[in-house]
Amino acid sequence: MSATTATTAPDVVAQRVAEQVLDGHVRSATRLITQSQDGDPLARRVMSLLYPHCGRARLIGITGPPGAGKSTLVAGMIGELRKRGLTVGVIAVDPSSPFSGGAVLGDRDRMTGFSSDGEVFIRSMASRGAIGGLCAVANDAVDVMDAMGKDVVLIETVGVGQSEVEIAQIANTVVLTLVPGYGDELQAMKAGIMEAADIIVVNKADSPGANGAVAELQNMGYFQAVPQGEEMWQVPVVKMSALRNEGFDELEAQILRQSEFAEKTGWKAARQRRRRVHQFAEVVTDGVRRDFMGVMQEGGGFNGLLDRIEALQVDPYAAAQGISRRLRTLTKDL
Amino acid sequence: MSATTATTAPDVVAQRVAEQVLDGHVRSATRLITQSQDGDPLARRVMSLLYPHCGRARLIGITGPPGAGKSTLVAGMIGELRKRGLTVGVIAVDPSSPFSGGAVLGDRDRMTGFSSDGEVFIRSMASRGAIGGLCAVANDAVDVMDAMGKDVVLIETVGVGQSEVEIAQIANTVVLTLVPGYGDELQAMKAGIMEAADIIVVNKADSPGANGAVAELQNMGYFQAVPQGEEMWQVPVVKMSALRNEGFDELEAQILRQSEFAEKTGWKAARQRRRRVHQFAEVVTDGVRRDFMGVMQEGGGFNGLLDRIEALQVDPYAAAQGISRRLRTLTKDL
Repeated sequence: MSATTATTAPDVVAQRVAEQVLDGHVRSATRLITQSQDGDPLARRVMSLLYPHCGRARLIGITGPPGAGKSTLVAGMIGELRKRGLTVGVIAVDPSSPFSGGAVLGDRDRMTGFSSDGEVFIRSMASRGAIGGLCAVANDAVDVMDAMGKDVVLIETVGVGQSEVEIAQIANTVVLTLVPGYGDELQAMKAGIMEAADIIVVNKADSPGANGAVAELQNMGYFQAVPQGEEMWQVPVVKMSALRNEGFDELEAQILRQSEFAEKTGWKAARQRRRRVHQFAEVVTDGVRRDFMGVMQEGGGFNGLLDRIEALQVDPYAAAQGISRRLRTLTKDL
Repeated sequence: MSATTATTAPDVVAQRVAEQVLDGHVRSATRLITQSQDGDPLARRVMSLLYPHCGRARLIGITGPPGAGKSTLVAGMIGELRKRGLTVGVIAVDPSSPFSGGAVLGDRDRMTGFSSDGEVFIRSMASRGAIGGLCAVANDAVDVMDAMGKDVVLIETVGVGQSEVEIAQIANTVVLTLVPGYGDELQAMKAGIMEAADIIVVNKADSPGANGAVAELQNMGYFQAVPQGEEMWQVPVVKMSALRNEGFDELEAQILRQSEFAEKTGWKAARQRRRRVHQFAEVVTDGVRRDFMGVMQEGGGFNGLLDRIEALQVDPYAAAQGISRRLRTLTKDL
């Protein structure tokens, strides 16, 4: 009986935290995101309780190279959404974003003008930790904001690394932000980010070459194929000046149009499923990686093998093959 | 008998390719790196044959924020090393590097002045593919250049993403390149890159604030602790102007000093072991991730579970827990 009581206690705490988050308490949500980043078991229990309450928020990814004005765009979008009475969550994974400055040197969030508005919840993600960890952490933060009842969650990432591209793909709609003279920038980014874009914004439309850039991108004609369907989404190009507050109506209209298209064609459901499939696979394999590293660092099992790898007698791939094959069989059986 | 013959054939091919690479054939090496990026099984066999010939090259990582002049530094280092009669390999993972421009829009390598020099082999890495994949691909490219007989392999990465930091850590010596007024840049990068630096270069030393930046970094006093040892490496700060060809002697001297220190204290061996441990763990878990994704996409085993995840009935972490636990037990037993 006492064992039951002992195991019940953390669940009572988890339940209380979950209720606070569902009620929209910013402090509880902030603490939960931090704890989930730290891999706190209590946070995991709270996340499980929140999960059935997710899936209501509209998730919009804002990506693009450094200097494309993503943060100004995000700030403008917050303003527009608030005017419509919608509540907003912002997750800044872009380390160069003013929104996420705090995450690098500490844990303060700079609200850049929205600090007094209780309906805007901004959270920056520190990018440290394991590979793959950043995407897991962003997934959790999105779920927390969704469960809090935010109508829209904006996910700002710098479209440079593969993990940033994957984070953008958590969103229902991915907005790629470019500026005139974007050619060099595109070179400097993965081609992957073009494939992830649902809408392209040419920002700083008042600078020279803006019309040319828009025309060029339109002529290139980017498309997104709906999986298992025959329909195609032609990626629209929106000319904007976020700084001068121009073009937000058109962007909003295109986001709505894409949302309706995605809903109707089953694209939205397919993307959500893909998000969860990825998340699930990442969580499982992250556990395997951790265990592997743990076993190896403890000096268990693999040391003889590692000695041979280090002595250049067996290469890491050959050494991994036998182990991988056995794990594979197991995976299929599960 | 015919079955034996059939399985022998690819090994004969692998043997021939390995010999060509060991002889320093640039074409064979280029093709091998591409094939290994594509996961070609033949490339895997060749890599196994090359592995015993690795471990001779000096591996130097050049990292830093965009705009710090890494490419100019790399170009200068190539020139200095060639003057000393050393052969050089360059792996550019930085997508904004002129060395890697080709990887994004195609597969051409821009040799930027060294194209006529047969002793300099430059290879840029496209950053597409799975998370973790980039580090695996960089590891392979380093091994190929090492086996080719390059005396020095320079690994240029932009110190922005976690995977770039891990790639820099393949090196025996990591050179972090900053410029005066680096404060904002440091904010924009992970703190992780500071922890990875063995030598800090303040580049563009002719610009205002250079002396202040050097003094500040020296006062901060960065140290690297040798694992399982009591010795510490104080990170030296080198003032340079790569563009004006100033400071290369001092950089070379510091790299040599760090190499000798690392050799003497066992730090080098510990780092090499860590590199291979990571590589091994990545290869194994990458296999698990692939199988997982494969099984899920084929519609085997997990579909019921995924349906429940999608319907927000079970969260991905809870779903993963049981599977993770079983895999963990297996991992320990191996």
